[in-house]
Amino acid sequence: MLNIAIIGVGTVGSSVANILKDNKEIITARAGRELIPTIGVVNNLNKKRDVSIELTDDINKVLDDDSIDIVVELMGGVDKAYEVVKKALEKGKAVVTANKALLAYHRYELQEFAQDIPFEYEAAVAGGIPIINALREGLTANNIISIKGIMNGTCNYMLTKMINEGVEYNQILKEAQDLGYAEADPTFDVGGFDAAHKLLILGSIAYGIDAKPEEILIEGIQNITSFDIEFAKEFNYSIKLLGIAKRVGDEIELRVHPAFVPNDQMIAKVDGVMNGISVIGDKVGETMYYGPGAGGDATASAVIANIVDIARRGKGSPMLGYEKSFNKNLKLLPKDAIKTKYYLRLEVNDKAGVLAKIATILGDCGISIEKMLQKPLKNEKSNLLLATHTCVEKDIINAITELENSKVVTQKPAMIRIEA
Amino acid sequence: MLNIAIIGVGTVGSSVANILKDNKEIITARAGRELIPTIGVVNNLNKKRDVSIELTDDINKVLDDDSIDIVVELMGGVDKAYEVVKKALEKGKAVVTANKALLAYHRYELQEFAQDIPFEYEAAVAGGIPIINALREGLTANNIISIKGIMNGTCNYMLTKMINEGVEYNQILKEAQDLGYAEADPTFDVGGFDAAHKLLILGSIAYGIDAKPEEILIEGIQNITSFDIEFAKEFNYSIKLLGIAKRVGDEIELRVHPAFVPNDQMIAKVDGVMNGISVIGDKVGETMYYGPGAGGDATASAVIANIVDIARRGKGSPMLGYEKSFNKNLKLLPKDAIKTKYYLRLEVNDKAGVLAKIATILGDCGISIEKMLQKPLKNEKSNLLLATHTCVEKDIINAITELENSKVVTQKPAMIRIEA
Ligand SMILES: NC(=O)c1ccc[n+]([C@@H]2O[C@H](COP(=O)([O-])OP(=O)(O)OC[C@H]3O[C@@H](n4cnc5c(N)ncnc54)[C@H](OP(=O)(O)O)[C@@H]3O)[C@@H](O)[C@H]2O)c1
Ligand SMILES: NC(=O)c1ccc[n+]([C@@H]2O[C@H](COP(=O)([O-])OP(=O)(O)OC[C@H]3O[C@@H](n4cnc5c(N)ncnc54)[C@H](OP(=O)(O)O)[C@@H]3O)[C@@H](O)[C@H]2O)c1
Repeated sequence: MLNIAIIGVGTVGSSVANILKDNKEIITARAGRELIPTIGVVNNLNKKRDVSIELTDDINKVLDDDSIDIVVELMGGVDKAYEVVKKALEKGKAVVTANKALLAYHRYELQEFAQDIPFEYEAAVAGGIPIINALREGLTANNIISIKGIMNGTCNYMLTKMINEGVEYNQILKEAQDLGYAEADPTFDVGGFDAAHKLLILGSIAYGIDAKPEEILIEGIQNITSFDIEFAKEFNYSIKLLGIAKRVGDEIELRVHPAFVPNDQMIAKVDGVMNGISVIGDKVGETMYYGPGAGGDATASAVIANIVDIARRGKGSPMLGYEKSFNKNLKLLPKDAIKTKYYLRLEVNDKAGVLAKIATILGDCGISIEKMLQKPLKNEKSNLLLATHTCVEKDIINAITELENSKVVTQKPAMIRIEA
Repeated sequence: MLNIAIIGVGTVGSSVANILKDNKEIITARAGRELIPTIGVVNNLNKKRDVSIELTDDINKVLDDDSIDIVVELMGGVDKAYEVVKKALEKGKAVVTANKALLAYHRYELQEFAQDIPFEYEAAVAGGIPIINALREGLTANNIISIKGIMNGTCNYMLTKMINEGVEYNQILKEAQDLGYAEADPTFDVGGFDAAHKLLILGSIAYGIDAKPEEILIEGIQNITSFDIEFAKEFNYSIKLLGIAKRVGDEIELRVHPAFVPNDQMIAKVDGVMNGISVIGDKVGETMYYGPGAGGDATASAVIANIVDIARRGKGSPMLGYEKSFNKNLKLLPKDAIKTKYYLRLEVNDKAGVLAKIATILGDCGISIEKMLQKPLKNEKSNLLLATHTCVEKDIINAITELENSKVVTQKPAMIRIEA
């Protein structure tokens, strides 16, 4: 028998308590012992909840209770959660969390406390998909070449709708909010920050690299327009918010941004609220993991998988995937050293010579054009939609500045990376 | 340091030995100790091989060697492999295998010997995809509703070519043989037996059900024609060889056969030699796992993942996923009790009244038609391609017999199941 305290009985916490009861028979058979949701901790004891677990608002009493074997942290936030988790580990209690923000900031400190004590976090990345499991245990024979993931269901829902139904960003955001797929303040999702937290966790397991959200490139989907969608359709791309981790020599790229993805790639086929993560290993090649990235029950499925693992074997694999330090000389690739293909949306006046001027500026910056589409606008303007051959981020940024300075464009150019 | 003996240094065995050397640095960091491919066992010591490991043809000497910690069985076959693996486990050596045939027949006997000793087999199902890992550890919170998998790359390659390029079965088989995707005797792959072995393993983890290949429905892809492909295209289906495990009340369906799959399902998007397995859990919903199902390096990636697991934590999860017996009352659903939708291809004479006669026979058998397509043939014949509403397998078999007896069809009807 294992006694479990659930710190935070909200969306995910309630599901954990309920599933442990609903599926008790099969879970006990798999785990080899009973997993008892003994006590739940909440902020507000007066809130009505659809869950049958004893509740308290006294976290410390729970952490001090020697009969509690496993602490499941589902309260969210960073500082208070860090305090709670740290105290639990110090008390020798196993910890399971779904808190990606906590791990994005404190995974390496927590690793120190979790040397001999189980600390698991499957639900923190891509909800119900066992991607931590796959990367940390399933692909250990490989040097990871790259990870490309759709790790935010809100963004994927919105981008799928934009591409399938031609709906503009603001309208689909409202729809997503009405449906409960997006928060009242959607910035954390649509700005790419949620995906970035998850990416940092995967980057640690793949490459042993420590980085904070502030250090990596993060761009959201807010500026995507129907012109970009038209370009995507014309050239057989999908648009996805991707989290990308990639090794280039002894440097690691970590970046989150919208990207054009060729339609024949498996991740291009991941639509709606679903998540999908493609991992390329040097020996196995590409594997891809698909499923629901959020939702109470789906996320609780991953939390309980961790609890079962702990019940079966105590401390399993090393928290971040390495028993010994590795590759301490791997460094983060500077943001402006990224190399990829780029799409530019340039609003221009419909006048002779404009295209020549643009081509000259791009050429002077070392950028060559691969594909182009011209779309008329009102007021004798046009949108030039173009894709470059592979070039360096610094050169594109430079070219965008040059284009603005030269006044050949009538608006700040929009840029989206192409991941082929 | 762990000493590893590789029994069978063929396609997969050579890759295991080579990857343990190539990726030694990262594997050691992940495993926490050195994994040494100490000795390899082969049949024919004179064969030229591209691998640098000491070789012997004396299996018993290796099994008796107390310095060997892990035995990796990659020789294939059933009886001899069973003997080898059993002896290794009795000697207290951990065992890793990629041998699905061995497990299809002996997994429950082997489980007895593997109570306290690690016995792992990730590579036995879907090669490089960590699907055993996902099902046995990642989804433990769930009652599994169904598993639908594309688990044979040869068949998927052939079916993809047939559908994309309109090539007939015999021609594409020859192509696949020339490319090395199909064996000289392709029966094991195209007849569905390889997929069946893998399905039985997944069925055990999902449902704790024991079954042998002889007890389940297995049909191959040999009788698929371009008419079936045309029907698929017309109604937006793909054709896949599926392994299906599904719970219906207290009975379990286990079956392997070609199936029409709606194009919007994720597994319909798994093309070419790749494998993909969709699992639906009652709490998590659908997750899908995609990747290479065969090939030396991809398969070795999974074998080595098991070795790393053993190095990290010795005995991990219970071999077939259950610490305690569960659901001993679950029984195999009889083959003729399957309920699904069916496609029939009926060759008929182009005469008035034929359709009415067919509709009457089907109706009398309790079968109603959902979709139909008529395609003219030479000699005043036609192919009627039709899809039924959901009905029972027994009724379809009965209807096919009635159609043949009535002489309304000029050839034995072909039937393909539809998985929507
Ligand atoms: N929801 C998802 O789909 C999902 C998916 C993946 C990961 N996650 C992660 O899972 C965690 C939980 O998410 P959620 O959606 O379940 O959040 P939620 O619905 O907001 O629930 C949070 C719970 O924590 C309690 N809580 C917060 N601060 C507390 C404090 N200082 N002391 C005691 N109790 C406190 C709240 O109490 P009251 O109920 O009294 O307010 C509430 O029960 C987060 O880290 C989130 O990032 C969520
Ligand atoms: N190939 C794949 O892509 C793949 C994918 C998934 C799973 N698997 C499974 O992995 C296993 C190995 O497959 P494989 O393709 O590597 O086979 P393979 O290339 O035919 O290699 C078999 C090896 O075993 C040796 N061997 C066979 N019988 C032996 C005996 N009685 N004593 C000593 N050595 C013996 C052979 O020796 P010689 O070299 O001297 O003939 C050969 O080295 C099989 O169970 C297969 O189902 C393979």
